[in-house]
Amino acid sequence: MPHIALDSAEPGIRGLLRYRPETGRPLSELAEVLLRGPSTLTRGERELIAAYVSALNDCRYCASSHSACAAAQLPEGMELVEQVRADPGTAAVSAKLKALLQIASAVRDSGRAVTAELVGAAREAGATDVEIHDAVLIAAAFCMFNRYVDGLDTIVPDDPAVYEAGAQRLVTHGYLTPRTEPGHPG
Amino acid sequence: MPHIALDSAEPGIRGLLRYRPETGRPLSELAEVLLRGPSTLTRGERELIAAYVSALNDCRYCASSHSACAAAQLPEGMELVEQVRADPGTAAVSAKLKALLQIASAVRDSGRAVTAELVGAAREAGATDVEIHDAVLIAAAFCMFNRYVDGLDTIVPDDPAVYEAGAQRLVTHGYLTPRTEPGHPG
Repeated sequence: MPHIALDSAEPGIRGLLRYRPETGRPLSELAEVLLRGPSTLTRGERELIAAYVSALNDCRYCASSHSACAAAQLPEGMELVEQVRADPGTAAVSAKLKALLQIASAVRDSGRAVTAELVGAAREAGATDVEIHDAVLIAAAFCMFNRYVDGLDTIVPDDPAVYEAGAQRLVTHGYLTPRTEPGHPG
Repeated sequence: MPHIALDSAEPGIRGLLRYRPETGRPLSELAEVLLRGPSTLTRGERELIAAYVSALNDCRYCASSHSACAAAQLPEGMELVEQVRADPGTAAVSAKLKALLQIASAVRDSGRAVTAELVGAAREAGATDVEIHDAVLIAAAFCMFNRYVDGLDTIVPDDPAVYEAGAQRLVTHGYLTPRTEPGHPG
């Protein structure tokens, strides 16, 4: 049961966005820009970074939900997501994405863990400054989202079908559209 | 020197908000709602939570800047900020704020460190659900801002006068107004 009385039975961050729309709006806009806005990183690659950081933070809701969103937007699907979550170093992703995932893992530990060497390696592998910026901010943002979702002990569905359905909705409508659930219109 | 080539010499997060306005806008809006929007917590109390978490995360820019913002908006000024940063348990703040600072410290470790006991203690001390929600989200948001600012190795001024001037600007104009610097109009 969540730590505070939410006004819906929606799981994870969705219950929080609905509870406090004043903060929900900028949070949704941030996710939309970072994970779906114009970028030289694909939407699948950006969701992979989000899923990877959420898994490192042991946030079951965010890790499941963004793994499903990554899988839905990557040609290789969930198999690649699982490879990255197990070990980005040996996963079948580009050298550039590997380097950005290493930066994301450092950000998760602490901002000060991002060394000039890690940034240099990403640049060597072809990453642009904006890609490095966005990888740092995606990782930092999920250090927020994960703490927000778990810090208020929100509902975590067990059924993988819930996350797959959420991913389909996301791919179609994005992070800005208010989501409707049976029994929770609007 | 920052890890990426920013387009201004502005320090800390200000250089990043200017570099990438697409993400800068929702980030500024989040700070404005959380730290200055309508709330039963004063602006000074909310900046105290931000300063405390930033200090725990060893983020020198954010800790200095939000300590100055807290001091500028608390009758007790910087002395109280220093007490809280040294030990919230013995600082001259209300039992409610002490309990919310304890929750913020737990969030900083991990969302899962926020126990029903910590939340119950805050409620006993008079905290409402929205205050508990906002304390969790302020702490989580600064786990993002701190990592963003340090993860890109942004400029950290040494001169306390820079942070005091920034706090005065903040108190007058808020987090949404674009800030102008000599040589960086706009």
